Amino acid sequence: MDIFDAISPLDYRYYGRSENIKKELSRFLSENARIKYQLKVEAALAKVLYKKGICTEDAANEIIKACQSVTAKEVYEEEDRIKHDIRALVNCIRKRVSEEAKPFVHFSATSFDIINTADSLRYKEFVEQVLVKVLLEFEKTLISIAEREKNTVQAGRTHGQHAEPVTFGFAVAEYVSRFGNCIIKIKDSARNLKGKFSGAVGAYNAASLFFDDPEGFEKDILKELGLSPATHSTQIVEPEYMLDFVHSVISCFGVLANLADDMRHLQRSEIGEVAEMFKSVQVGSSTMPHKRNPINFENVKSMWKVFFPRINTLFMDQISEHQRDLTNSASSRFIPEILAGLYVSVKRMNRVMKNIVVDKENIKKNFEMSKDMITAEPLYILLAANGHPNAHEYVKQLTLESQKTGKSLREIVMNDKNLKPYINKLKPEQREILENPEKYIGIASRKTENVCKYWRKRLGI
Amino acid sequence: MDIFDAISPLDYRYYGRSENIKKELSRFLSENARIKYQLKVEAALAKVLYKKGICTEDAANEIIKACQSVTAKEVYEEEDRIKHDIRALVNCIRKRVSEEAKPFVHFSATSFDIINTADSLRYKEFVEQVLVKVLLEFEKTLISIAEREKNTVQAGRTHGQHAEPVTFGFAVAEYVSRFGNCIIKIKDSARNLKGKFSGAVGAYNAASLFFDDPEGFEKDILKELGLSPATHSTQIVEPEYMLDFVHSVISCFGVLANLADDMRHLQRSEIGEVAEMFKSVQVGSSTMPHKRNPINFENVKSMWKVFFPRINTLFMDQISEHQRDLTNSASSRFIPEILAGLYVSVKRMNRVMKNIVVDKENIKKNFEMSKDMITAEPLYILLAANGHPNAHEYVKQLTLESQKTGKSLREIVMNDKNLKPYINKLKPEQREILENPEKYIGIASRKTENVCKYWRKRLGI
Amino acid sequence: MDIFDAISPLDYRYYGRSENIKKELSRFLSENARIKYQLKVEAALAKVLYKKGICTEDAANEIIKACQSVTAKEVYEEEDRIKHDIRALVNCIRKRVSEEAKPFVHFSATSFDIINTADSLRYKEFVEQVLVKVLLEFEKTLISIAEREKNTVQAGRTHGQHAEPVTFGFAVAEYVSRFGNCIIKIKDSARNLKGKFSGAVGAYNAASLFFDDPEGFEKDILKELGLSPATHSTQIVEPEYMLDFVHSVISCFGVLANLADDMRHLQRSEIGEVAEMFKSVQVGSSTMPHKRNPINFENVKSMWKVFFPRINTLFMDQISEHQRDLTNSASSRFIPEILAGLYVSVKRMNRVMKNIVVDKENIKKNFEMSKDMITAEPLYILLAANGHPNAHEYVKQLTLESQKTGKSLREIVMNDKNLKPYINKLKPEQREILENPEKYIGIASRKTENVCKYWRKRLGI
Amino acid sequence: MDIFDAISPLDYRYYGRSENIKKELSRFLSENARIKYQLKVEAALAKVLYKKGICTEDAANEIIKACQSVTAKEVYEEEDRIKHDIRALVNCIRKRVSEEAKPFVHFSATSFDIINTADSLRYKEFVEQVLVKVLLEFEKTLISIAEREKNTVQAGRTHGQHAEPVTFGFAVAEYVSRFGNCIIKIKDSARNLKGKFSGAVGAYNAASLFFDDPEGFEKDILKELGLSPATHSTQIVEPEYMLDFVHSVISCFGVLANLADDMRHLQRSEIGEVAEMFKSVQVGSSTMPHKRNPINFENVKSMWKVFFPRINTLFMDQISEHQRDLTNSASSRFIPEILAGLYVSVKRMNRVMKNIVVDKENIKKNFEMSKDMITAEPLYILLAANGHPNAHEYVKQLTLESQKTGKSLREIVMNDKNLKPYINKLKPEQREILENPEKYIGIASRKTENVCKYWRKRLGI
Repeated sequence: MDIFDAISPLDYRYYGRSENIKKELSRFLSENARIKYQLKVEAALAKVLYKKGICTEDAANEIIKACQSVTAKEVYEEEDRIKHDIRALVNCIRKRVSEEAKPFVHFSATSFDIINTADSLRYKEFVEQVLVKVLLEFEKTLISIAEREKNTVQAGRTHGQHAEPVTFGFAVAEYVSRFGNCIIKIKDSARNLKGKFSGAVGAYNAASLFFDDPEGFEKDILKELGLSPATHSTQIVEPEYMLDFVHSVISCFGVLANLADDMRHLQRSEIGEVAEMFKSVQVGSSTMPHKRNPINFENVKSMWKVFFPRINTLFMDQISEHQRDLTNSASSRFIPEILAGLYVSVKRMNRVMKNIVVDKENIKKNFEMSKDMITAEPLYILLAANGHPNAHEYVKQLTLESQKTGKSLREIVMNDKNLKPYINKLKPEQREILENPEKYIGIASRKTENVCKYWRKRLGI
Repeated sequence: MDIFDAISPLDYRYYGRSENIKKELSRFLSENARIKYQLKVEAALAKVLYKKGICTEDAANEIIKACQSVTAKEVYEEEDRIKHDIRALVNCIRKRVSEEAKPFVHFSATSFDIINTADSLRYKEFVEQVLVKVLLEFEKTLISIAEREKNTVQAGRTHGQHAEPVTFGFAVAEYVSRFGNCIIKIKDSARNLKGKFSGAVGAYNAASLFFDDPEGFEKDILKELGLSPATHSTQIVEPEYMLDFVHSVISCFGVLANLADDMRHLQRSEIGEVAEMFKSVQVGSSTMPHKRNPINFENVKSMWKVFFPRINTLFMDQISEHQRDLTNSASSRFIPEILAGLYVSVKRMNRVMKNIVVDKENIKKNFEMSKDMITAEPLYILLAANGHPNAHEYVKQLTLESQKTGKSLREIVMNDKNLKPYINKLKPEQREILENPEKYIGIASRKTENVCKYWRKRLGI
Repeated sequence: MDIFDAISPLDYRYYGRSENIKKELSRFLSENARIKYQLKVEAALAKVLYKKGICTEDAANEIIKACQSVTAKEVYEEEDRIKHDIRALVNCIRKRVSEEAKPFVHFSATSFDIINTADSLRYKEFVEQVLVKVLLEFEKTLISIAEREKNTVQAGRTHGQHAEPVTFGFAVAEYVSRFGNCIIKIKDSARNLKGKFSGAVGAYNAASLFFDDPEGFEKDILKELGLSPATHSTQIVEPEYMLDFVHSVISCFGVLANLADDMRHLQRSEIGEVAEMFKSVQVGSSTMPHKRNPINFENVKSMWKVFFPRINTLFMDQISEHQRDLTNSASSRFIPEILAGLYVSVKRMNRVMKNIVVDKENIKKNFEMSKDMITAEPLYILLAANGHPNAHEYVKQLTLESQKTGKSLREIVMNDKNLKPYINKLKPEQREILENPEKYIGIASRKTENVCKYWRKRLGI
Repeated sequence: MDIFDAISPLDYRYYGRSENIKKELSRFLSENARIKYQLKVEAALAKVLYKKGICTEDAANEIIKACQSVTAKEVYEEEDRIKHDIRALVNCIRKRVSEEAKPFVHFSATSFDIINTADSLRYKEFVEQVLVKVLLEFEKTLISIAEREKNTVQAGRTHGQHAEPVTFGFAVAEYVSRFGNCIIKIKDSARNLKGKFSGAVGAYNAASLFFDDPEGFEKDILKELGLSPATHSTQIVEPEYMLDFVHSVISCFGVLANLADDMRHLQRSEIGEVAEMFKSVQVGSSTMPHKRNPINFENVKSMWKVFFPRINTLFMDQISEHQRDLTNSASSRFIPEILAGLYVSVKRMNRVMKNIVVDKENIKKNFEMSKDMITAEPLYILLAANGHPNAHEYVKQLTLESQKTGKSLREIVMNDKNLKPYINKLKPEQREILENPEKYIGIASRKTENVCKYWRKRLGI
């Protein structure tokens, strides 16, 4: 297929065109991967059938070998004929084996024993082998920025208004922590994905014809694959394991989106504290040659808007009538898109954050803007601590006076006779903060260090 | 690309494998289409530049001709180099024209003059040239079922419980009407999609350098394409036109899903009133050879669960900061998926409904089940109309008696002395309904006819 | 009930505490209103029963009068006993009338004839009598700001970066236009809400016992109320009318949210172009006495996040099995919350925008920041128009030189020998734009006027 | 306020009218509760201030005592005056204490130190003290049904079609397991809700004026309340803790909705395997006196449609600009509604399931319908196991023959000469299953026991 005949932007734009990304993702998330993993499950079944004495070693080996050569293309051709995907897969395996082995292909299994197990397995392996790597790389990038900028005093902002100072490193440490938690959750929920081999309605009806302990049979097959069964299953695994997994993926996307928004706003013309690196050959605007736009941050926010609403599908797929209806089948085929969406967005964020331009002069300039006013908080608290009965209101009036008269708050304070007795009681380091508000950063720097240290250790990076 | 390396199920499963569907859809919804339409817009611009005396006829013709040969592939190669999609497109056109024509490529335009206009145009043409056709075909299928089955008495069901009788045709007429309304809405909202040529911030800054009436210039270009401008635009067209269009598409999907659910439930083993046609070679279950499953109805419901939550992205894309931020860019690339989703689902429903198996015996058998009890409603109403002061409660007690004793409600009623005086007052046709509840179908048949006639006429089919 | 025992923030915070708002809203959106409107529908039924000769004028009058005195409280008490809301309502009416009139209460109707009709009616009247008034007031506020500020030159912003100039009035005109379209859509979709009187399964089964033309009977009742029937109904009105109405309400909310975001960002400390008015007694922060936060804009954005996802419920409520299941019953009770949410948010926005502080000095200061660079676009276009074959790239290089050297772009341009021949060809008014970029506002001012004029006329304000 | 003037159905219908439910819920979820918990946090702060030597014991005690008497009403009156909710709360406390104590009210805290901490605390306590109790009660109900019905053979259903047999107890055990997992998740995520005392931008700016170890100060306050801090916070706690909590609540709702759907469908007229208990005074339909509708199951499904989309708001609230913007403030006020929604729905389900009517005759009758065909699966598997090379296809043809001829599958099989050699190889218990398909229930019964035992133990019930 001509890639530009694709409809999905993932396929023609965000995934399929880069050979590297394609290689990483298609191993787990493409239709080729889907079928490859289903074949792995069929092979594991054959292996355990032999171990349990149901079929001969030869039969099992024939099946295992056949599973290595079946292709998506031929499965689809067979499915076009018989209108059943897993029976098509089974037929493709059967074609390759002897009459003796034929009966043991897919023996006692139902379609969703294969499909659910294969999906759990490939998502789990995708997380372990691919996704966690890029998540950790990005976490390392965040940690190195946080540590590097831990002392860079920056205006803290609430409501988009200057509040009290933080450091830029401290601001990034927020994401070190939130993203760290997300990595843990993704790993845990992926590891918690379940397989099943309990048959068409979950009561091990078919397997019970041959095994006294069909749950043991199920466990053995899943163990071959590195999985375990759910406490209960019907035709399908309880949907909450997958829901929780996708939840962890999408909540991680939200953290990315928040960081992207923070950076976009810091790149506003009037703020200019950070900027995406810009290559000289790059074009900022088709018509405004001077523009330097935060296009990557915008892209990540946009992708978040694409992918987070998909959680709604997963919630609806919790409902499957009786031992199951098939209305979660097509929908579950779209889950890989969500994983690919996070993957490409983390890669992008990592690329951009690694080269983020931090404009310390602008950071300082912006901080200076409201440096004087920032004194208001420590002043009111210190007054209160020293017994001023109405410090908050009193200081508020002084700030209004400062705004009206244009005099600095500090000046007004120092000349205010009512405050003298309280000011005099201040310890030198307290008074220093009133004079140098850039010192009023609390433990921003130390906290940054600790957060980074904590996550380095917890994630082993 | 190997199609099975695709991640999107649309590309590898629901769209890309069928040559017919692919041809229909890729003309409007693929990346090739996206770029082809952008080139159409650039060509229309050139044409109007000549008409307005800005460039020579030769220059315009050179550009128009160039626009016919640029390919997605080369645009992407250029974009990889300069990181700007529309500037890449422009460069590809420029490469093909003389030095004299070069300056007039994309003259005075901003990227989103091209992108917004091209998208509106291709979605509009997709609706007019492709989607409406399949919608109308499906509407015709529904109408023919409704008309054919207008007299097939069926148990009406509320709460999944037998209520009063309808006819199967009347039940289908519900969808004739709802789907008819959807077709109208899709056509209207597609026709209402807008283009723009108001420049980078919407104030016609660039165009004003050359035209006294830049809004006229915009109108002329859009007219070439069969579009009109919005009342106001910034860098982008007001997002509500696209939102309303996607809303119409998704609300149509909901009607499909409801029909699919109705049919699925009518196909339940215990009900068995309808069934999907089943080919003899088809496999119902990988393990239960006797199964005949409503897989197509299930598929449509599942696709609805995939696509309706995407409306959330469109709602979030209403927000674009100031004259626009780019966080709606990646997300708007996914809109064609929604259109493709509806298209394949309508096609599928049409295929299945066309061949739907209606089991009249089962319909009758089910109706007979509660035929006796159905009398309760007309009985209570006729009693009331004839002056019984407490008819609802009185009849309710009789139904309880019937359930307890096993006697038919009709028998109990006819033997109830208290009711005699009221029963005696009934007109013959009223009394007949108590005796033959299958006559208690109101105007089901006539209403079905009228609904079908109305929609045939309104839609010209 | 103690209002602070309420769980819903609407009830205890955003609605119930203000006597004015409560009066406006509770007339249509409270449970008292719900029942009052159901009684109106029962009364209309009685009236038409008399007109059609089914009951006497006295009976009808008794019922109509009874409908005026039934209260929500007693309906709920009766419902607690018999577990059916409409039967409870009916019993409450019946209690008040003579034995002769009793049978004609709710005669031939099913619950949802009453419920659907009453809801359509009260939402329609809420829109017409309350909501449209506040929407128009807000539109007037926007228009007056747009007209007042039509010449206030402001940096146009795309990607959060300064692009080309607009005027502040032009920026507000965007919302005049988008909000105007929303008002039209809300009015149209509210007017399009439908009633029904087609009985328990929609086939007019009961009404057919008495009327040859039960559709005429339905029309007459609905006409009494100012409504019309849908083309088809089952136990319920086709759900798409209500869906479209709620869609119009929620898409209007999105426009508010976008405006709120724009204003929030313009109020950022570094930008400071607008500010919410702040009362001197007001407290900005519990701990930072100097803060002036855009709390109202933030509130509106937050309310949008609360309400827009509720559209998902409406989409799911499109699905109702067969002649209807009841799974849309509880959910439809929450629709008034959405209407109340929009109402209080529009009121709030109107209050804030009416008193918005526009800081023209800051607007100017910010514009001056990038005034020089803004020249880049007209420059490249004028060069192109005068035959420069590579204007975009050439100008881009000059902007890079300007950034590197610190020289102004204008200076570099004027000293560039290569550009001389092109510059010399410029008309005086074109050259003036290069020298005074604040003139490069296109038709911002005129467009603002036209948009305002258009909407004044179209909305009759 | 007249409760029927409320807009929220929770307040006027599902919550406020029942004194018992109101008592349980308003302690944690009402506005009174919100403020009561904020006062608890202010009191804990005072206590620790004394312990740390910042204020005297008397001052602390005055504040603690004051916190016990402040009411929501007066806080709202003060807020109406000064437009800041927490400062209003603070003022109400201050009013009650001496000049000496005044400065230590809210000392060094920012509003969201109080708000976030109070919300985490009340939701956590709501779960521990109220919600878990009803969840466990319901789990017990499910377990007792599962155990009671573990041997009740029932048609297993996939795609709404009879598949292989299960037992009704086994079908309920699915929900024992899924609901059990939900309880664990809700408890864990509630216990994981975090508090904070890190000040206005999270860097402990104010607290650092007085404490060398402000994180220790934070820990001490939170410990008083039974909470712990997040690894990092800004003005607010990292939003993912609350998101995960609400996710657990909503995913539990999904399990309820699935059960409700299963029961609704089993109550269909044609299936009739279960039914909601119906009181004799109860009215099923306002017009059809004989109707017995699954209104409670329908209500639960409907409530799920109301509440699950609210997760979208939580995902959007992950984004808060820089050290925080306020756009998550109003929205977070709606979280208690979700908790109340789950609570009333679980209560309802428990009430209904406790009294669920199980119609064993219908269960049996339905099973008998397809008993013969059910043989198909074990037959094909046993043939395969005994070496039949093409068992699936062969059996499929026999089922078609059975459908065509009306002969039973069993009869056809027993008379099929080709099958003889395979049939003869079967063990007696295998052959018995072909003759008595009701034995083909796998380990349904044993599995049910195990699932119930497991959850009894794990949940300590």
